[in-house]
Parts: sequence; C-alpha cells; structure tokens
Amino acid sequence: MTTSEKAIFLHKEWNGKIETTSKSPVKNREDLSIAYTPGVAEPCKLIAENPDAAYAYTMKANTVAVVSDGSAVLGLGNIGPYAAMPVMEGKCVLFKEFGGVNAVPICLDTQDTEEIIKAVTYMAPGFGGINLEDISAPRCFEIEERLKNALSIPVFHDDQHGTAIVVLAGIINALKVTGKAKENCRVVVNGAGSAGIAITRLLLTWGFPRITMCDRQGILHKNYPGLNWMQKKMTELTNLEQQTGTLADALKGADIFVGVSAPGIVTSEMVSSMKKDAILFAMANPVPEIMPDIAKAAGARIVGTGRSDFPNQINNVVAFPGIFKGALEGRASQITEEMKLAAAEAIAGLVSEEQLNEDFIMPEAFDPRVAQAVSHAVKSHISR
Amino acid sequence: MTTSEKAIFLHKEWNGKIETTSKSPVKNREDLSIAYTPGVAEPCKLIAENPDAAYAYTMKANTVAVVSDGSAVLGLGNIGPYAAMPVMEGKCVLFKEFGGVNAVPICLDTQDTEEIIKAVTYMAPGFGGINLEDISAPRCFEIEERLKNALSIPVFHDDQHGTAIVVLAGIINALKVTGKAKENCRVVVNGAGSAGIAITRLLLTWGFPRITMCDRQGILHKNYPGLNWMQKKMTELTNLEQQTGTLADALKGADIFVGVSAPGIVTSEMVSSMKKDAILFAMANPVPEIMPDIAKAAGARIVGTGRSDFPNQINNVVAFPGIFKGALEGRASQITEEMKLAAAEAIAGLVSEEQLNEDFIMPEAFDPRVAQAVSHAVKSHISR
Repeated sequence: MTTSEKAIFLHKEWNGKIETTSKSPVKNREDLSIAYTPGVAEPCKLIAENPDAAYAYTMKANTVAVVSDGSAVLGLGNIGPYAAMPVMEGKCVLFKEFGGVNAVPICLDTQDTEEIIKAVTYMAPGFGGINLEDISAPRCFEIEERLKNALSIPVFHDDQHGTAIVVLAGIINALKVTGKAKENCRVVVNGAGSAGIAITRLLLTWGFPRITMCDRQGILHKNYPGLNWMQKKMTELTNLEQQTGTLADALKGADIFVGVSAPGIVTSEMVSSMKKDAILFAMANPVPEIMPDIAKAAGARIVGTGRSDFPNQINNVVAFPGIFKGALEGRASQITEEMKLAAAEAIAGLVSEEQLNEDFIMPEAFDPRVAQAVSHAVKSHISR
Repeated sequence: MTTSEKAIFLHKEWNGKIETTSKSPVKNREDLSIAYTPGVAEPCKLIAENPDAAYAYTMKANTVAVVSDGSAVLGLGNIGPYAAMPVMEGKCVLFKEFGGVNAVPICLDTQDTEEIIKAVTYMAPGFGGINLEDISAPRCFEIEERLKNALSIPVFHDDQHGTAIVVLAGIINALKVTGKAKENCRVVVNGAGSAGIAITRLLLTWGFPRITMCDRQGILHKNYPGLNWMQKKMTELTNLEQQTGTLADALKGADIFVGVSAPGIVTSEMVSSMKKDAILFAMANPVPEIMPDIAKAAGARIVGTGRSDFPNQINNVVAFPGIFKGALEGRASQITEEMKLAAAEAIAGLVSEEQLNEDFIMPEAFDPRVAQAVSHAVKSHISR
C-alpha cells in the first residue's frame, strides 16, 4: 500500500484519531457520588468562589482547543470545517503524544472573522489555551490579535509562530555551521502568507537587519499591487531600500532563503547568485522550492525542507507541543516574543557541537528531550 | 473522609476527569506521515468531496459535545461556565463509561440565547451530537428547538428529556406493580422548570389524560402570575378543568406525584389524601420532597427518589448514554418523541416480572444491559 492508501485505510479503522477517556472510575455507586452528583458540587462551589480554582479541579489546566475554520488547510486550501477535521485530530494527537497536552479539535462552521472571535471567546472557559490552525491570511492576524486581547489564556496561531520558531531554530544552527553573523546577513523570505509574515517578524525580532519578502509578483515594496493590510505593514519593516524586481533579483547576493511558497520556483541559477555558503530552507510541501541535491550542486551549503526523507527537516512538531506544555504548566497568559525566541534557542541548543553539521541542524522530531527543553524555555520567560 | 472531602481531594488529584488520548500511534516517521502530513490529506479530500464521509474518517461518528452556559447547574444555580466544568466533565465520564461515547465538555461564557445558538451551530461540524446541559428555563426550550432546526445532528437537553425518559420508565413499571391503568390516573407534576415541563410533555405523549402541574404558588392555570411562554403553553395542555389552589389541593385524589422541586414540601397529610396505591417520585436532590419512609407510612405504595441510598433511584444515567449511543450508531438526525418513548419502555423492560416489586421498579444504573437496550430502542425508531 502507498502512504495515501494506508492513510485512508487507517483513518477508517480509527474512525477518529483521538478519543476521550476517563481519569475518574465509575465502577460503583460511591465512584458515581464523587465524580458526579452529589460530590461534584464541592469543586463547583470552590470554582464559583474563585474562578482560578478551575486550574486545580478541571481539565482546563492541561487542555487546549485546536481551532480551525478550514479556510487554509495544509496544501488543500479552503476545504471547510468538515474536511479539516482529520488535520485537527492529527494535531491533537501530536499535542498529546509529544507534549502530554490534551487537545480537542474544534472545526468552526463560519469563516466570518467576528463570528470566529466570538465563538472562541465563548468556548474558552474549559480550555487552558487556544491553538489556531489553518485559518487563511489576513484574517488569521486579526483573529489571533483580538483573541489575545479578549482572553487571559494563551492564543497561538501555529501556522505562523510554530513555523517561525522552527525556522529560527534552524537558522541559528545554520549560522553556527557557516560562521555567518546575523548582522551581516541578507535574508529573503518567499511567500507573504501567514507563515512567511510570521517568520519575517520573528527573524527581525531576533536581529536580522535586512530581510526582503517576495510573493508571486516578486519583491514586496510599498507599491506592490494588491497587498493586504498586514503585507503593507511588512513593507515598512522589510526591504528598507525599497528594491523592486523578481525573486531572482532578491536572491542575488543573499545569504539565506526561506521559502513557504510553491514547488520548484527556485532555480540553480538563483542559488548560484547567492552569497557563498548560502542557506536555503525550501519548505513548500510536499515538493520543495528547490530539491536539496540541485541546490547543493548550485553552491548551497545548507538546505532544509519540510520533508522527513531529506536531512534538516523543518517541522513544527518540535515547537508547538512544548510551547503549550510550558505555557500551561507555568500558567502563562500569553505566548510572548521572548518565549518564542527562547523556544527557538532551546530547539537549536539540542543539537550538540559534535552533532552539528550541514546535514544535521535540527533535533529529531522524536527526540524525547525536545518538548521538555521547549517547555522549560517558555516557562523561564513567564512574568507576572 | 466524607464524600465532600473525598470529592475535593480526588478532583484535585485528577485535575480534570477526562483526557484526550490517541488512537493513532506516532512512534516513528511513517506513523507521522499517515496520521498527519502528507497522508492526512487523503481523508480530508474525501470529506471535501462528500461531507458525509466525516462519519467514516473522523471522531464525529462517536463524539458528542456536552454544552452548558452554567446557568442552572445541579442544585447550585447560576454558577457560570468555569464552575460548571466539573459537572460537565462528570457527564462526559458517564457518556464514555456507560455508553462508550466520546464526550467533550464545552462551557460557554455567554448566557445570551442568540449567542449560544450561534456558538453551538459553529462548533457542530466535529461532533455527532449535542447534549445540552444545565441551561436555565425558559431559554433552554428555545435554544434546543432552534438548534434542532439548525443542525442535522441530534440535539438533546438532558435535564429535560433524560429526566422525562427515566421518570416515564419508572412510572411504566409502577403502574404494573399497582395495577393502575394510565387512562384512569391523575398525575401531579410539581416544579415547572425544564425537567417538570419535559416530564409532563412526555407523560402526555405516552397517554396520561389528566396531568396537573404545580409550582411555588400552587396549581398552574391560565391566570397564574408570572408564567413564562412555555409554562403558559403548558396551561393549555394540563389542568384542563382549570383548577386553582395549592399543591395539597392538587394531590387530593391523585394517583401519581412527580416532584422536581424542593426538599420536604410534601407532607404525610398530602400523601394520605391521594388515591390508594399512590406512586410518588420525589426527586429533589439531595433531600427529596418527602422521605420514602414517611411517604410509605402515609399510604404510598411506591416511592422513588434521585438518591442511590434509597430503593427506586430515578437516575438519568440509565438514559442519556444509550440515547446517544443509539443515535450515533444509527446516524439519527434527531431524537424524536418515538425514540424517547421507546427508550423508556426499554428501560422499564429490563426489570423482569420476577424482580419487579414496590422497591424494584428501575434497573440498576450499573446494569450493563441498560445502554445496549436503550441504544437498540433508539436505533429501531430511526427513519430516513
């Protein structure tokens, strides 16, 4: 069977990749009188007096909602809330298996920004955090921002920040391997959707002075046609010389390419035009912007992709489970920029000096230290 | 330790009575490529083509949302969504343990009817059914009705219909024991909230010709002060002779008393004034409308309560897990009146002729046949 066939067969077998299970037994009348009525009234009363007690007596302490409207699912696009469920269930599996965090998939039957914000706000009491997933740009920016302001629990759009964190982790180690200094690097980010924008913002925060963003019609600048409000904002933070031109123009003399865009759009010539020891993260899935062997032959020093069958997989799964594990354990009210930077450093730090080389800049997704290290980094940056 | 102390201690230990667990392993890269990307895209595509495939490939097939706004929780009243969580988690435990149905507690931070309807409608795609819980009357009637119309999955307010089903089951068997015929019985239901109204409606549907409802100010009639719209509607279906007076007046010559009201409000004298072989379901919790020994001494033949430490416990747990189990297995789009009647008959039928007596009219909550029998009854009444 191919992976596709296996996936269909097994999804039918599972008929839901997650289930709810009881931690409290109900084998007899006494069990019932404790887990349910009349005993259950006691924790209810304590929480009614002090809502914070919800963290002590309910699953809120260790449960996130994985919320999507199905508008931008994987490479599949706007497939709606029903078809998005397998992805959200998969995400919930990863939360539990990698981070020990309970996760509930919530697929919303609306793509209206205001309605999504209200629905998530209303359902928040039972959850310790909200992981937004596969919501299209630019709505995702407003939805996340407004929910962060409305709620006192962490709200985190993983397509943006999870991706940004793992990219930064990879770049930190790639700089070590190549001996490049961030101050001198020119970075090109191709793809001005939610991931590309979040990557750019985090790389700016980390201290890259010169980043150029590109999208389908080349380099983003103030007069680029059809920009949304967030992309417009990005033209004030990037491409400070207001260069115009194509992706090929942008890559001339660049040190780092980060692609969250489309298969095969980077050519050998483009790679050859980059600085010596070029670093390329070609993360289009399943077919990268350029295949690693072609990029290497054209002079690239380090190539990462989203795929597990090439070296240097840039995979969100090393970030989000630990991010929420740490945020929940530490009762963070938000995921801050400091936490994201610390998480990236922690992920990068798991690759030891001896291991670190061109083909090994990221820890393995299955390295059991990952979630712990990320969680610790997040917790150490919680301020009250 | 008392039950209260144990409940607090154990709720802290559990820190959430339910958790999410994975049915799909993710121990290696291949697992990951099937449960998540790229394999997960295959079931997504199938569902995008045909939303019904969600029942084959996602947890929708066997998962309900237990939704409350915390406005009418147990005997605690309007304690809000945070404090309602332990009850909703407990309900989810019962769904899983008794019915094998996955259940997710959703406590909504709004008590606005329109907002609740919208929030539940939006979150519905991932669920196979909606169990409404502890929502105050009369809002609960409109919320349930409108959600039933809006959604193609079963919506069931358990405080209403679960209670009504178990009461009817008990009454069916109580009539067998006493030899009374429903056509000749006069029934008094005390308490005109969500449970009292639903009980009355189901008893009318089952065929009791004469039912009188009472509330704090006595017998409900058309000019009773301060009735809500649903209570008004009930005055057209009950108390056809438009009697006025107190609960004591109503009980004179009545055959059956059903109380979902307040502790100790039924006196010996009232019971003595009822017909011979009177049947009393005194379900105020934890202290019934009249204690069983007092009622028996005053001439009652059969007494049921909500408590597990007296005979004849009238407990929703024999209904709702099987109701949803059957509805989900049979892909019912609604829980109909026929299904409710069939469920009540099925529950009553589990007490064999040999077992049946004044102190044994209900099957045990822990009788493993219960959910199966109820589920079967529901399934056999699904029409397409």
